[in-house]
Amino acid sequence: MELGKLVRVCGQLGRRHVSSSRVHEHRGPFAMLSDVDVATFERLLGSSAVLTEPADMEAFNVDWLRTCRGSGAAVLLPRSTEEVSAVLSHCHGRRLAVCPQGGNTGLVGGSVPVFDELILSTARMNKVNTIDPLSGAVSCDAGCVLEALDTQVGEKAALMVPLDLGAKGSCHIGGNVATNAGGLRLLRYGPLHGSVLGLEVVLADGTVLDTVQTLRKDNTGLDLKQLFIGSEGILGVITRVAIQCVPRPCSTCVAFLGCPSFESTLQTFQAARHQFPEFLSSFEVMDAESMRCVRDNLHLRLPLDGEHPFYLLIEVAGSNEDALEESLLRFLDKCMSQSHISDGTMAKDSARVKELWRLRESIGEALRHDGYVYKYDISVPLATYMDVVALIREQVRGTSAIRVCGFGHMGDSNLHLNITAAGWDEALLGRIEPFVYEWTASVRGSISAEHGIGLHKKRFLHLCKTPAALDAMRSLKRAFDPLEILNPYKMLPPSS
Amino acid sequence: MELGKLVRVCGQLGRRHVSSSRVHEHRGPFAMLSDVDVATFERLLGSSAVLTEPADMEAFNVDWLRTCRGSGAAVLLPRSTEEVSAVLSHCHGRRLAVCPQGGNTGLVGGSVPVFDELILSTARMNKVNTIDPLSGAVSCDAGCVLEALDTQVGEKAALMVPLDLGAKGSCHIGGNVATNAGGLRLLRYGPLHGSVLGLEVVLADGTVLDTVQTLRKDNTGLDLKQLFIGSEGILGVITRVAIQCVPRPCSTCVAFLGCPSFESTLQTFQAARHQFPEFLSSFEVMDAESMRCVRDNLHLRLPLDGEHPFYLLIEVAGSNEDALEESLLRFLDKCMSQSHISDGTMAKDSARVKELWRLRESIGEALRHDGYVYKYDISVPLATYMDVVALIREQVRGTSAIRVCGFGHMGDSNLHLNITAAGWDEALLGRIEPFVYEWTASVRGSISAEHGIGLHKKRFLHLCKTPAALDAMRSLKRAFDPLEILNPYKMLPPSS
Repeated sequence: MELGKLVRVCGQLGRRHVSSSRVHEHRGPFAMLSDVDVATFERLLGSSAVLTEPADMEAFNVDWLRTCRGSGAAVLLPRSTEEVSAVLSHCHGRRLAVCPQGGNTGLVGGSVPVFDELILSTARMNKVNTIDPLSGAVSCDAGCVLEALDTQVGEKAALMVPLDLGAKGSCHIGGNVATNAGGLRLLRYGPLHGSVLGLEVVLADGTVLDTVQTLRKDNTGLDLKQLFIGSEGILGVITRVAIQCVPRPCSTCVAFLGCPSFESTLQTFQAARHQFPEFLSSFEVMDAESMRCVRDNLHLRLPLDGEHPFYLLIEVAGSNEDALEESLLRFLDKCMSQSHISDGTMAKDSARVKELWRLRESIGEALRHDGYVYKYDISVPLATYMDVVALIREQVRGTSAIRVCGFGHMGDSNLHLNITAAGWDEALLGRIEPFVYEWTASVRGSISAEHGIGLHKKRFLHLCKTPAALDAMRSLKRAFDPLEILNPYKMLPPSS
Repeated sequence: MELGKLVRVCGQLGRRHVSSSRVHEHRGPFAMLSDVDVATFERLLGSSAVLTEPADMEAFNVDWLRTCRGSGAAVLLPRSTEEVSAVLSHCHGRRLAVCPQGGNTGLVGGSVPVFDELILSTARMNKVNTIDPLSGAVSCDAGCVLEALDTQVGEKAALMVPLDLGAKGSCHIGGNVATNAGGLRLLRYGPLHGSVLGLEVVLADGTVLDTVQTLRKDNTGLDLKQLFIGSEGILGVITRVAIQCVPRPCSTCVAFLGCPSFESTLQTFQAARHQFPEFLSSFEVMDAESMRCVRDNLHLRLPLDGEHPFYLLIEVAGSNEDALEESLLRFLDKCMSQSHISDGTMAKDSARVKELWRLRESIGEALRHDGYVYKYDISVPLATYMDVVALIREQVRGTSAIRVCGFGHMGDSNLHLNITAAGWDEALLGRIEPFVYEWTASVRGSISAEHGIGLHKKRFLHLCKTPAALDAMRSLKRAFDPLEILNPYKMLPPSS
């Protein structure tokens, strides 16, 4: 066992790049990559599509947050479904483990190898195949970068991909689907399970499973594509995606508001949901500490006087700018008169809209200025949405913690809880975990709202899944990948 | 083999109630119901929850369209998940086959037994458990009738179930989920795969799989609930449903329009999708023959002068009546000026809205006045949407066919193709099938857009699914129901 028994994730990537969790794993019973394998891959893909030099592989072996480093023995860069199929067929025959990788922007250590798994990247599979301006159906290769895809469907057909997230400039649509990415527009357009129309997937043994179609309604047998949405690469490699795109809204207005209490943010949300559900595209909340951090660490100026216990960013989007603005103004008047909001500002020109969004979107960057950030991404019932922030403040009192912030996609019940310290501190971590996961499970929340399980959260999965559910997941894994070559060590904890 | 080898579907339910397909099946290797089994069920459920008298079972043994009659040996009416689990555990131990049944409104013979399968009805499981006015999440038992559930969430929290279909007064929400029902609002609110939040399912061996949660975002492991949406009862029995409800729109406007050509209906659709996507809730098309049938057979008056090659019914719904009406008027003006529509009328008061909808919704009833109706429910790419209607008119020329009509949810690319004749005619059927399915498959359409596969379409499934996809479905069946006791003979064709 040359590769050691401990995943090499901790303490070696610099002070700010230390994993929040140590994960102990044994290497599985997989073959080691041989020269013959490399020659086979070079024959199948061409030699430029097979990387084996450590320097060339570095960016593929380390994750985006730099919390884990694998030792992938080779990086394979197929250009077509047929090439993916040929590669997997060979790997299956030899029992070589494979780590499928999209844009490598995942946040839970799911997209890099743990030991020497081969890295199968979709980076060279990036063609948009069809855009139907009439129905909005778009089909493309899995390696299309989300932002590039969105730009293309916008320019060619005034459409928009119903998915938007911070990593859009790097993430692949195939990776988005494989991790069931959520993001900023879910409140309006719903999850990928509703908008993905079809998938082409290569199974562990190289079989191509083609469920690509471009129809909204299709009740012909078990809906196989659904299985692969959010499967994090453990059941198959997604090679093509068909997705229902939406008409691109003509205009957008944003309001940035101060609220006197959490209760008042709830009242404002309820009013917005009922007053203009058809326009509402984002409903984001930030607590005072989050905004203080943005102000102090990034020197951004808040557009409101004084300090407020909570802030809201509300976005509405639609086809008629006047109607949109009028709706939003009427709504804000009403909220002010009912004292749900204390102060606010509104924007409709795109530069000012971006400026307001920047206050929300730069929280992550501002937090990093404190030093190390412990990041949690949970869903909780709205009534208890901010409870955990206060509880964690209590938990970390007297430790090295600098601040505890709560913010997130309130419209989707999705909270980002962040704790900062000058550096990595095991004792502080012990105060946060497993407490935060156990508390979340106790309110029937989700311990991972949109980031997935990957490597980092595997040992907490049992907190929110019954033994019967874990057994069902394992039987699906057995049915689709009996040799367990696809993304081993990820998502599913071993059966006890 | 006392029950015969031929499914008794044909010719015995009256002239108008004859199946459109003969399906040959052999009874599977299941146990026969014994007195001891009946006593066991009576002990588990109470004797009033076990029906064995033929007269009591009649309504459960015959489907809604009266195209199939089973010989279910008993009807079981559990009141709780625990009772469903106890029943299935016993059936699994004895290898007794089970046909799960909701409101029995399915159109493909999926909800009634083929031989003597026990009928497991959810009719007595009809409690609404929780309604969260804030998030819109609702959880309820599987046997809740769709319309009753919708009324309750409307009255208690101004919410609406994001699903509406003709059978809403009888169908169960559990059955809707099990068949992935589509219906009239899909264009606006998307499919159930996007709006179902969680399910509780009892597996074939009685194991309770609880994935009920009420959160919009939850990426914790494989999304098991998705497997059961549209599984037509072959993988498990759905006992509870959590669903994301939407704010009930305050106002609705409907336009009924005449169009000079199919091309102009496409242009109108494209304009509507881009001009007010946030309001558009239905986009229905009817050909001249459909409207002629409504006029001649039901003596309904069309609100437009003369006859038009195509008619559209467009519904918009939203939170502001004035904005809605103004949007629709502006849109109609533009369409008229561009000659995409020749004539039209518009309504916003609810009585008149219902009257216009009646023209669309009574087509089915009007067709039945001709005699026998051959019904097809397909999805096709919009550009080819009406092609099959002309092709079928050609196909049936010189037969007993009275008329060929095309109408449907054009906004979802979903066409209802209907052919009428005075009575059942095998020769006419031979002109339609398998042609209609083969043609649909050839344009990569769906041979069943929203009705499912059930018993009637099983033998055509291979036309639109690859062998690899059928194999994957079978391996899922094996993983969840190795003894194949759940809804046997349905959906999956035997492997060849």
